[in-house]
Amino acid sequence: MKEFIPVCKTKYIFTCQFTVKIYLIFNSMDYDRLFLNRAVGIAVSGIEEGGGPFGAVIARGNEIIAESNNTVVLARDPTAHAEINVIRKASAILGTHNLPDCTLYTSCEPCPMCLGAVYWSGIRKVVYAYDRMDAASAGFSDKFIYDEIMLDASSRHILFLHIPDCSGGEPFKRWEEFEDKISY
Amino acid sequence: MKEFIPVCKTKYIFTCQFTVKIYLIFNSMDYDRLFLNRAVGIAVSGIEEGGGPFGAVIARGNEIIAESNNTVVLARDPTAHAEINVIRKASAILGTHNLPDCTLYTSCEPCPMCLGAVYWSGIRKVVYAYDRMDAASAGFSDKFIYDEIMLDASSRHILFLHIPDCSGGEPFKRWEEFEDKISY
Repeated sequence: MKEFIPVCKTKYIFTCQFTVKIYLIFNSMDYDRLFLNRAVGIAVSGIEEGGGPFGAVIARGNEIIAESNNTVVLARDPTAHAEINVIRKASAILGTHNLPDCTLYTSCEPCPMCLGAVYWSGIRKVVYAYDRMDAASAGFSDKFIYDEIMLDASSRHILFLHIPDCSGGEPFKRWEEFEDKISY
Repeated sequence: MKEFIPVCKTKYIFTCQFTVKIYLIFNSMDYDRLFLNRAVGIAVSGIEEGGGPFGAVIARGNEIIAESNNTVVLARDPTAHAEINVIRKASAILGTHNLPDCTLYTSCEPCPMCLGAVYWSGIRKVVYAYDRMDAASAGFSDKFIYDEIMLDASSRHILFLHIPDCSGGEPFKRWEEFEDKISY
């Protein structure tokens, strides 16, 4: 399991950790705005090409690694959100499934799918312009999916069937026994 | 926004809708077990090839459309979970970003990323064998990410910076004006 160090906790407010964090936030603010503006610009220009109204950039420090717009309809791929696309691109460019030194700039707050992808990628900072309410106003399901994920499976709009006694095998037991595994 | 019809609501318990649903659930149980066993088997066999211990199958009715294991490390792609892979494969095979007639069979309860992908794909039924607690016991972050997604952004382990007044453009306004858009 990835290790995450807590940030923005009240108990640290007067500690060095917090002071350094505040300094870093203000020091990087210009690049944050620059790269966020670029992500939003990609969202706008992508619409004319048949993309959804979302754009994203991944940067490492002051260097842009990858950028993408939403290509769900163009690529006939429901997972082709701007954030998923850009995480896949950056991973291919850097040759790793782990991007802990990178920041994601995205025109809109990541939906649950893309937020999950952020965690799995190890990215530790996300900067965004619009939020799930803005997306809902434009007809997108981001807020609906956030609301669904909070519910117990039996109350969701999708049918979830848990069959714990299936006879297909024991993958987690086999994983634990497997000596050549690479954890992620 | 996609339309979802509520299922498993108490108020329908004595209606025809509920009766038909119960009938369909029991009638399809054999195929559910068959396809779920296959998904779990794919999870087990994928480990030897360098995959993570997860497998998934997408079926339409009694026909398997696509199947995949987890290839995060192999593909150097943090989004390459079995469910994301199989949704992308099925979409490519069927030539559409919309899979409302399909069922997802997955060896383990989908993580938030994959659950989000299920919603965006329009899939309305998910069958799974193991759950997020089993995954956590094997060292995976699924439960951690579920716990994080429930929190306010300021309390999460990832830093979220909302800059609502950026000057990159107005993608949602442009989207609303764009006459040739295809909603999804």
